[in-house]
Amino acid sequence: MTETMRRSLVLRRRPEGEPAADDFAMVEDAIPAPGPGEVVTRTIFLSIDPYMRGRLHDRKSYAPAVKLGEVMTGQSIGEVIASAAPGFAAGDHVLGSVGWQTHSLTPAERLVRLDPHGAPLSAYLGVLGMPGTTAYSGMKDIGQPKRGETVVVSAASGPVGSVVGQLAKREGARVVGIAGGAEKCLWVQETLGFDDCVDHRTLDLPGALAAACPAGIDVYFENVGGGVQAAAFAQLNPFARVIMCGMVAEYNDSRPRPGPNLAFVVGKRVRIEGMIVSDKPHRFAEWRTLAEPWVRDGSLRYRETVAEGLEQAPEALARVLRGGNFGKMLVRVASA
Amino acid sequence: MTETMRRSLVLRRRPEGEPAADDFAMVEDAIPAPGPGEVVTRTIFLSIDPYMRGRLHDRKSYAPAVKLGEVMTGQSIGEVIASAAPGFAAGDHVLGSVGWQTHSLTPAERLVRLDPHGAPLSAYLGVLGMPGTTAYSGMKDIGQPKRGETVVVSAASGPVGSVVGQLAKREGARVVGIAGGAEKCLWVQETLGFDDCVDHRTLDLPGALAAACPAGIDVYFENVGGGVQAAAFAQLNPFARVIMCGMVAEYNDSRPRPGPNLAFVVGKRVRIEGMIVSDKPHRFAEWRTLAEPWVRDGSLRYRETVAEGLEQAPEALARVLRGGNFGKMLVRVASA
Repeated sequence: MTETMRRSLVLRRRPEGEPAADDFAMVEDAIPAPGPGEVVTRTIFLSIDPYMRGRLHDRKSYAPAVKLGEVMTGQSIGEVIASAAPGFAAGDHVLGSVGWQTHSLTPAERLVRLDPHGAPLSAYLGVLGMPGTTAYSGMKDIGQPKRGETVVVSAASGPVGSVVGQLAKREGARVVGIAGGAEKCLWVQETLGFDDCVDHRTLDLPGALAAACPAGIDVYFENVGGGVQAAAFAQLNPFARVIMCGMVAEYNDSRPRPGPNLAFVVGKRVRIEGMIVSDKPHRFAEWRTLAEPWVRDGSLRYRETVAEGLEQAPEALARVLRGGNFGKMLVRVASA
Repeated sequence: MTETMRRSLVLRRRPEGEPAADDFAMVEDAIPAPGPGEVVTRTIFLSIDPYMRGRLHDRKSYAPAVKLGEVMTGQSIGEVIASAAPGFAAGDHVLGSVGWQTHSLTPAERLVRLDPHGAPLSAYLGVLGMPGTTAYSGMKDIGQPKRGETVVVSAASGPVGSVVGQLAKREGARVVGIAGGAEKCLWVQETLGFDDCVDHRTLDLPGALAAACPAGIDVYFENVGGGVQAAAFAQLNPFARVIMCGMVAEYNDSRPRPGPNLAFVVGKRVRIEGMIVSDKPHRFAEWRTLAEPWVRDGSLRYRETVAEGLEQAPEALARVLRGGNFGKMLVRVASA
């Protein structure tokens, strides 16, 4: 039986605090047909990422907010089911930003065709995709760890943090992760090979992090904010670099919390720099080319949490925001 | 009559809050005689700078604290009265870090001999000295303003801020100062030629600064901290650079205040970087060579506040910390 209807999740109202299922509505329409240069895909995996919380605010930001009634944005992996564009044929697997829907109609130039022999499909949303490229770009463009320096990354078991730490190990740095809970910390040390991992739920996080970083911190890759940020900032060495990638612990806040007094930035000549990976489009293909062999040979490790069914996307986002995922969060919309 | 005694101000106790005269003690000893390679100078001008407050804390910092009973540190301009070092003769004017005393015994390699035809002596402590070099290095190494960008500098009438803004004008930027009081703001606009200057004592500083920066802020040179910092940070544009040079409004605090929430650093890809000019020793002579002609031809403007007598140094420091100086703060210890 050929499917004829498409289901999409649209934003019904702006969430306050944690996003919930009823902030979105499921709508149906007919699967469209491709016009010239267009491709129709069926979605296999949705990527669920912390940055999406920002799209739900009606605030000025680096990217436009999702409007009420619009399909929620996001990257996905799909299979081409109809194509009116050269270079794309039914059965091709593609990466694109088509949002939370079962099928999409997309101009071909916005899709990346994936090498069927490259890596498992879902990897292109995580370790080889936006999160992996974020880690790579942040370390290459800002962090630049030297052999023997100490690199700390928060959300260390996540798809950004896990790549940050593994890259830093390849550079010969001492690598310390910060993650939520003993299970994640164990995986970060045993499977990813970090030198140490500190549980941010410990009673004395500043003390535990200081103990794990006896020579201080030279590079801090920030994914979390809040008390984790304060603990890491307290251990920064002179000339430390801080990659400000995200502050997921604060994304549900309705008002910003106070931050760190910045006097240490002067005295320690620290560099704190924000990054958005889409500013460096050339890094995406560069990273895929570099890291695909590492994924295939198993030397670059990653982990995924997969929720089943498009209707699970809002809860999957809420889960990412409270750290309830373990590794890259995905929603499987249909089987490959 | 030849002087035979030297007077020195030593630290008697660590000040709490604003430094006071009785935190220091005046001690006397005989003017020393130079050993091989040494020079004896009589002090003409002492430099009084905000960073000196940090030397009075018993805290780990980028430079060692002054110990109790030690002569207070600081740069000065002096005249050689006895020399046992080649290249230095009685009557030479020299720049050195000899501290708060009427005479000094110093190894010749720690002194810079000044060109008698270069510029007025006091200029080598301000516009051509450490503060001017700080402005130059901060703008060259971090700020890098482009034509048409908006540059904001706090403590704009001070010896760092006044050079920051004049350099940015030379680069074709729109330059907005922040200063304390109408008299300073008028001078910043009329004499230094800034495009605008906002009085930080105004009731609505964030509103006034926003009005003065209709295109936002691309480069912020931070000398002040506190509410001035918050107002400037709120107007930063995407890809803004912040030179963290000092936070003088907070130097008397016994405990650090909360700072800014840093979520904007991610979204706007802001770079916040601390600097200490002594990390870039090559910039000092480079700046003197570049700026001496500008001081001589009057195109680089500066202003000084001069207190009379070594015993005035503690009060002069307190004055700088509360913004009571106008331009570079100096103590005249003896006539030239």
